Amino acid sequence: MIRVAVDAMTAEKGVHEVVHGAVRALKEYPDLKVLLVGDPAAMAPYLKKQDFGERLEIVPATQMIGMDEEPGAAFKAKKDASVSVTARLIKQGRADAATSPGNTGASLAAATLTLGRIKGLRRPAIMILMPSIHGCCALLDSGALVDCKSEDLVQWALMGSLYMSEVMGVKNPKVGLLSIGEEESKGNAQVFEATPLMKAAPFNFIGNVEGRDLFNGRCDVAVCDGFVGNIVLKAVEGIAKMIMNGIKESFKKGSFLEKIGGLLSKPTFNRFRKATSAEEQGGGPLLGLNGIFIITHGGATRVMIKNAIRVCYENVKHDMVRKMTAVIDAGQGKEA
Amino acid sequence: MIRVAVDAMTAEKGVHEVVHGAVRALKEYPDLKVLLVGDPAAMAPYLKKQDFGERLEIVPATQMIGMDEEPGAAFKAKKDASVSVTARLIKQGRADAATSPGNTGASLAAATLTLGRIKGLRRPAIMILMPSIHGCCALLDSGALVDCKSEDLVQWALMGSLYMSEVMGVKNPKVGLLSIGEEESKGNAQVFEATPLMKAAPFNFIGNVEGRDLFNGRCDVAVCDGFVGNIVLKAVEGIAKMIMNGIKESFKKGSFLEKIGGLLSKPTFNRFRKATSAEEQGGGPLLGLNGIFIITHGGATRVMIKNAIRVCYENVKHDMVRKMTAVIDAGQGKEA
Repeated sequence: MIRVAVDAMTAEKGVHEVVHGAVRALKEYPDLKVLLVGDPAAMAPYLKKQDFGERLEIVPATQMIGMDEEPGAAFKAKKDASVSVTARLIKQGRADAATSPGNTGASLAAATLTLGRIKGLRRPAIMILMPSIHGCCALLDSGALVDCKSEDLVQWALMGSLYMSEVMGVKNPKVGLLSIGEEESKGNAQVFEATPLMKAAPFNFIGNVEGRDLFNGRCDVAVCDGFVGNIVLKAVEGIAKMIMNGIKESFKKGSFLEKIGGLLSKPTFNRFRKATSAEEQGGGPLLGLNGIFIITHGGATRVMIKNAIRVCYENVKHDMVRKMTAVIDAGQGKEA
Repeated sequence: MIRVAVDAMTAEKGVHEVVHGAVRALKEYPDLKVLLVGDPAAMAPYLKKQDFGERLEIVPATQMIGMDEEPGAAFKAKKDASVSVTARLIKQGRADAATSPGNTGASLAAATLTLGRIKGLRRPAIMILMPSIHGCCALLDSGALVDCKSEDLVQWALMGSLYMSEVMGVKNPKVGLLSIGEEESKGNAQVFEATPLMKAAPFNFIGNVEGRDLFNGRCDVAVCDGFVGNIVLKAVEGIAKMIMNGIKESFKKGSFLEKIGGLLSKPTFNRFRKATSAEEQGGGPLLGLNGIFIITHGGATRVMIKNAIRVCYENVKHDMVRKMTAVIDAGQGKEA
């Protein structure tokens, strides 16, 4: 049985989306157990007709950390916050993995301080899988650490490469250093400092990559400082939303025939949206901890929650904590 | 007469695209003169049927800087490179503005070293107008300077704000500092250092903005280091291309009715593409020089060249060099 703890209280769309997402996952994976963390009374109405027996457990938590709270202070003050209880279930051996759709900073604080870092790992990173023409590209760090050091980039590349190979089935993943040109002469001070370290590291380093290479299949893993990664991630989400809405608006302004065209095209758009949506990705793994923790979107729907649980499930199946620990340990040996 | 010099030799699609673009612009603006710089023999075949009299001048240049050449070295070695001759026409008083579709680094070197910076301006910036739901948002710097200082960000914001107000007609443009969250507590060391300087500066500073705010109308000007801006710009171009191609592919996989829908939707897509394309924007002004220089895309089509010439024309009409000089001078006074 694979046991996944889910913070049920912090989704902006409400407790019911999380509960329905969990129910969907339980129906799909017969060897899955879900531990829903939060207010039992709030969850009860949505579980009336469900009977998963021991595969579903409600774990009470009396507090929650809101989107606007300062993560570090809130984590310290609210010992019984749902995100903290969720992370503790791994530490206590009651769950194998966990996910939360809440305040990213609070998830980061709760997961990191509760589970601790893998031995030898400098700082954890949030990895996001961006849709690309032939699958996806891992972008990390996408917001866990700003003003990082070159050594962080190397460790993140090690973990990203392992993840793409083990969980996503990519052979010998191509790792790039995100920069302003492919040539080794193009970059900032950090790129120049990191390049020799990346070359010496045990993964398939292909050199500098550019923003566009996240989507054209040129690389499978792109590493950068969390400041850059977070801005890129949100810019990409922003323009994707603008394009999809813009096309919808453009249909409205069109001729009668174009409007018919719009109606007939709906399945096309839905298929495309499904193939590329963050909902389907589920969430971003927080890599580098002594436990599997997946950060998902504050605005997550039941579909996204179900997929975040799926990502937890797959990480456990692939024994990722043990493998990450081994690769970081080996990397340490190499540097020493 | 407004006189615009155009580097005719460095467009990847060939001399003819530049010449045809210039012809389009000449037809649209009766008070425009274009100086086409390059090999007269290469241009001649495309100008046979045209007669613009004194409004079209061919200025010979015997060399060109390729896309793969190291910009600084090539600029020094090739005194008669088309991009350098183009920039010199402004310096010599023969042109009021200039544009080149070549190697961005070479344009930057030729323009900066030939024209010189506005007095008191630390470093010039490339400004790109990104399409947003209600018009556009200026992103700068998008690649002229990496590892910039906080003082650069303030000067770029001053110039971007002036540009949006004067050329784009935006009242009291909202200026944001690109970061990883709206809250003042979210950012990297540079954001924290720049925030008080931005607050004290004479423009409408709205605080931190996120990647998504480039597209949702929350800000009119977003400033960041050239490393971040260039990666964001290319990532955004990359996903936009992937989405448009992805939808096209998705139509192909669809049912017969969906394919009909695809055909009927073509005008919708074309309208949307036109409204948001880089072609229509023309190019990015290099702000902060004693002259107007617009950097356009290496792969520019005749439409894009025509629009780059239009941007030159508008900048001259709005007397932007004089106004930029005044705003930087006033900014200096304020700091002192």
